[in-house]
Amino acid sequence: MKKHLFPPFIFLAVFLPQLVFAQAPAIQRVEPTNWWVGMKNPNLQLLVYGKNIGSSTVSLTYPGVRLKKVNKVENPNYLFVDLDITPAAKPGTMVLTFANGNNRTPYRYELRRKSHQPLGVTPADLIYLIMPDRFANGSEANDKFADMLDPNADANNPYLRHGGDIQGIINHLDYLQDLGVTALWMTPVIQNDELLKKEGPDRMQAGYHGYHFTDHYKIDRRFGGNEAYSQLSKALHQRGMKLVQDAVYNHVSDDHWFYKDQPTKDWFNTWSSYTNTSHKEQSLYDPHAAPADLKVMLDGWFTPFLPDLNQRNPYLANYLIQHAIWSTELFNLDAWRIDTYKYNDMAFMNRCNQTLLTEYPKLLLFGESLVSTPAGLSYFVKNNLNYPFKSNLPSTLDFPLFNAINGGLQQNFGWDTGVSRVHQTLAQDAVYADPMKLVTYLDNHDENRYLSVIGDDLDKYKMGVTWLLTTRGIPSLYYGTEILMKNFKDPTDAEVRRNFPGGFPGDRENKFTAAGRSRRENEAFDFVRKLANYRRATPALHSGKLMQYIPQDGLYTYFRYDNNKTVMVATNTTDKEIGLDTGRFTDSMKGFTKGRNVLTDETVSDLKLIKLPAKTAVVLELMK
Amino acid sequence: MKKHLFPPFIFLAVFLPQLVFAQAPAIQRVEPTNWWVGMKNPNLQLLVYGKNIGSSTVSLTYPGVRLKKVNKVENPNYLFVDLDITPAAKPGTMVLTFANGNNRTPYRYELRRKSHQPLGVTPADLIYLIMPDRFANGSEANDKFADMLDPNADANNPYLRHGGDIQGIINHLDYLQDLGVTALWMTPVIQNDELLKKEGPDRMQAGYHGYHFTDHYKIDRRFGGNEAYSQLSKALHQRGMKLVQDAVYNHVSDDHWFYKDQPTKDWFNTWSSYTNTSHKEQSLYDPHAAPADLKVMLDGWFTPFLPDLNQRNPYLANYLIQHAIWSTELFNLDAWRIDTYKYNDMAFMNRCNQTLLTEYPKLLLFGESLVSTPAGLSYFVKNNLNYPFKSNLPSTLDFPLFNAINGGLQQNFGWDTGVSRVHQTLAQDAVYADPMKLVTYLDNHDENRYLSVIGDDLDKYKMGVTWLLTTRGIPSLYYGTEILMKNFKDPTDAEVRRNFPGGFPGDRENKFTAAGRSRRENEAFDFVRKLANYRRATPALHSGKLMQYIPQDGLYTYFRYDNNKTVMVATNTTDKEIGLDTGRFTDSMKGFTKGRNVLTDETVSDLKLIKLPAKTAVVLELMK
Repeated sequence: MKKHLFPPFIFLAVFLPQLVFAQAPAIQRVEPTNWWVGMKNPNLQLLVYGKNIGSSTVSLTYPGVRLKKVNKVENPNYLFVDLDITPAAKPGTMVLTFANGNNRTPYRYELRRKSHQPLGVTPADLIYLIMPDRFANGSEANDKFADMLDPNADANNPYLRHGGDIQGIINHLDYLQDLGVTALWMTPVIQNDELLKKEGPDRMQAGYHGYHFTDHYKIDRRFGGNEAYSQLSKALHQRGMKLVQDAVYNHVSDDHWFYKDQPTKDWFNTWSSYTNTSHKEQSLYDPHAAPADLKVMLDGWFTPFLPDLNQRNPYLANYLIQHAIWSTELFNLDAWRIDTYKYNDMAFMNRCNQTLLTEYPKLLLFGESLVSTPAGLSYFVKNNLNYPFKSNLPSTLDFPLFNAINGGLQQNFGWDTGVSRVHQTLAQDAVYADPMKLVTYLDNHDENRYLSVIGDDLDKYKMGVTWLLTTRGIPSLYYGTEILMKNFKDPTDAEVRRNFPGGFPGDRENKFTAAGRSRRENEAFDFVRKLANYRRATPALHSGKLMQYIPQDGLYTYFRYDNNKTVMVATNTTDKEIGLDTGRFTDSMKGFTKGRNVLTDETVSDLKLIKLPAKTAVVLELMK
Repeated sequence: MKKHLFPPFIFLAVFLPQLVFAQAPAIQRVEPTNWWVGMKNPNLQLLVYGKNIGSSTVSLTYPGVRLKKVNKVENPNYLFVDLDITPAAKPGTMVLTFANGNNRTPYRYELRRKSHQPLGVTPADLIYLIMPDRFANGSEANDKFADMLDPNADANNPYLRHGGDIQGIINHLDYLQDLGVTALWMTPVIQNDELLKKEGPDRMQAGYHGYHFTDHYKIDRRFGGNEAYSQLSKALHQRGMKLVQDAVYNHVSDDHWFYKDQPTKDWFNTWSSYTNTSHKEQSLYDPHAAPADLKVMLDGWFTPFLPDLNQRNPYLANYLIQHAIWSTELFNLDAWRIDTYKYNDMAFMNRCNQTLLTEYPKLLLFGESLVSTPAGLSYFVKNNLNYPFKSNLPSTLDFPLFNAINGGLQQNFGWDTGVSRVHQTLAQDAVYADPMKLVTYLDNHDENRYLSVIGDDLDKYKMGVTWLLTTRGIPSLYYGTEILMKNFKDPTDAEVRRNFPGGFPGDRENKFTAAGRSRRENEAFDFVRKLANYRRATPALHSGKLMQYIPQDGLYTYFRYDNNKTVMVATNTTDKEIGLDTGRFTDSMKGFTKGRNVLTDETVSDLKLIKLPAKTAVVLELMK
């Protein structure tokens, strides 16, 4: 027996302060900040944060809501309160009462009625990716705030805020819709209130791009806050356009409030000495992988400034999932792009995905996993492989096809070079459960800009854009690609995240208008616009099947077709005009006698030998 | 009514010759040339060939054997006779009687008792690949025959026979066994009695390599015929060694006897104009593939001199399958290597494989499919992908790993270059049902010789050999690689199929002996020999698991382990000696305190920091 282990004075020293100085509990945060009745999942776990809140009791009386359990954790500043929002619960404001002895603090918590029905994002869409800080500045009043950790804004500094915001995007929705865009994806708009950090002797790191969350429940004030985001969502939906949010489950900024006061010892993945992730996703699917490598891949940090979240902690898992539900409902989201997908705990991701899809079956979820091979990438999405772990993620960014197009356009045609790479990549689609749903792209904020990669060649540019907009998948376009923005990531990523000319006060050029664009830029813009709008009106390019033929001599031909329409895409990647003998394509062309070139509006009256200009993808709508 | 369509004289002109000149049926061939009682499959279909044999009746009285059906085909020179060899049948000689009216021809057909039990070929083996014409000439008496279509032999002409034969191989079994070889695979020894063919202005094509069959049931006389082959099989098995035969189901020579007088119109795949195969196997597994492309891939010809067999013809299918059974039983085969696997009809291949495996469950079957990606290659072997078609082939040559090793050794280390390619290729093993059974190689008769590919660098040579002999799979070694034979395929394939020095009369050098080899050649030979013999004695390298670690800074470490032993392979691919910090490898090294370098026999007493010389793969047997 170990009675009286501590002498009485120790007892007093430990517990007396609480007794003596007991006061009304101070509530700094309750998250999610509100919730909804009518969810399929009746459970809600509130994170309650406040000085010594852990020593409080909690009570609640609200019809249809039951307080199931109050969970304490190592850090006394946290409580996790489990509620059961039964079907009987009605919208309203419930009052949670936190008490220290007789000292009570009431907390008003709003329950609304769930009403959101996502439109989803489908192969009928064209997604446009914007980095809001770099697109358009709609309000100079929110460019910077003296009370934020990085109080500066300077459009000439690649690491600092440039002042772009959500209002700037709202101001240009006409531009986007005219271009043929139907869905908007922004790099994250959640608060990144953090210090500038030294990444190396010459490089800084800062959260202008949005991936360094510091407060999940706030849209960054510099973008316009929650209100502006809600307005954007409304404005988009009024136009029939859709909103994609960028999720980051893997890590947060080291300036995140809950990193500075961590709820539990295992809220983050910690190491005895700093350990970076290997970025080597083979550790997940390699049957010969070492457990130690897997741990480094998943639990290693993305950078020293991005603490890695331990999604095996059940409170954190709930926190992240509830935030996703909260965002979907509050901001009426239609899809989620999931950042750094391959670095997350996969069991957590499946649970998170499933929870979202149970509430919102039409929501599209697509991950970002930079994996070179289709077989490897397929591990991180619903697939046709008997991997021991089965992902339930419906879609992913198609990194292999991105590589094949960008790489192929830089090469001469060969057995597995040039356009053969495009063919061979699509030919591996059997690894995916639903390849038609993959999100395709030519460039994005993390890659060299497409036009620069392909040597500033407008003919190649059009070929790649044509493939993007006519082959299988859900295409996404990076802002500015349509006006020939270019650059390599060297010396900083900001080179491929330059301001959209015309979006910022004082801009000498305005490339949002035809008058502000050069002839060459208009040629590109008009090309994208014409094809994107044709695509929007052509279901065969959304839900139609794909049939592709073996490339020969630098020529690559494929068809998209359904019961109503067949669209032929015949590419000549060589430097010389050729006549394409279509005798090989009877599987797809039988019964058709002529075609309409959807880019030139010319009629092709003889389909037997089709003239293909050098470096051109001809798009023909076939006719009987 | 169309009575009396032909006037009587026409009737006489057509049918009279047979009546008037009726004579005893002439039997030129009955194939298989013999059969066995005791097969699991009781069916036997004899191909009977002879002038106008199609008009004969057939009868048979033999206890336990039932004549089920006599099948006529378009060509009157063929009959296909279906027999049921019931369990009651006993070995003996049965007499088939072919009759034209009263004229009868008896044909004696031997039934033996099935007795062969293959040893199989497993990861415990090391396969050695020989091109028999180029290895050793055991008998000058069979170098050439005036009655063959190519009656010449000239060791100085790359297109002609050099005189190598099976006796030459038998003469050097000591050499092979001493080297550590446990299984012999020869390029085909079946008769290739064909004319020299012009492949281009400067290139000839001839069957010295064996892949141009002209008579399935004869081992080429220039190799020593069926007798020599049986002797080789016996000699191998007496040593506990195994025999692998090379199957060619896809095509035959245009000098094959049944091409010159084709049984049916659809015995071969025919085209209105010559059509070469595309070699593009994507047509099989691409969900977007065009049926027309698939047909070209499968039914197109390999070369204009290699008529493509139509395996959908049921008589041909039976013919090919029965020949495989016949060869297995008669020559006591342990495994089959299947040439040009990806060009075959896959339903046929599954049936063929299943028939062989039903009779001989331990037989190893492995295909040759030059497919770059593991996911693509997996289509042609038992796999973990839900392809609509499921292959039942147990194993395949591992072309992706071959590429990764040869390609990786030519590159500096990088994210996906150098040894990263080896790691990343093995990391995709989840696509295969049984990756441990794949047949691995560094070069073969169709590839540039390994040593030349890697820049004649003996250090790199040893690294690659070490990986081959210690990583997962069943390794195969191409003849001469162990004595540093080198060359590129330019100007002819014969450059990589040169005579083994010492194998031919008049050779000035004899590299079968240490005295005949240079110091460098002995260094290579001794290296291969030491490691191959260590491998042979070490079950952890056969049936042990593989655990590989992410390569870093040009260092690649993996382990083979079972309950009894752990073998560490630590490779330094860089140009500088380094000390390998083994802290990352605790998953594999826990409990071990020292190691034995199996190549130098040195003891490594401190496993924490292991000295790795430049460009070296150190193999350590770990000890507690």
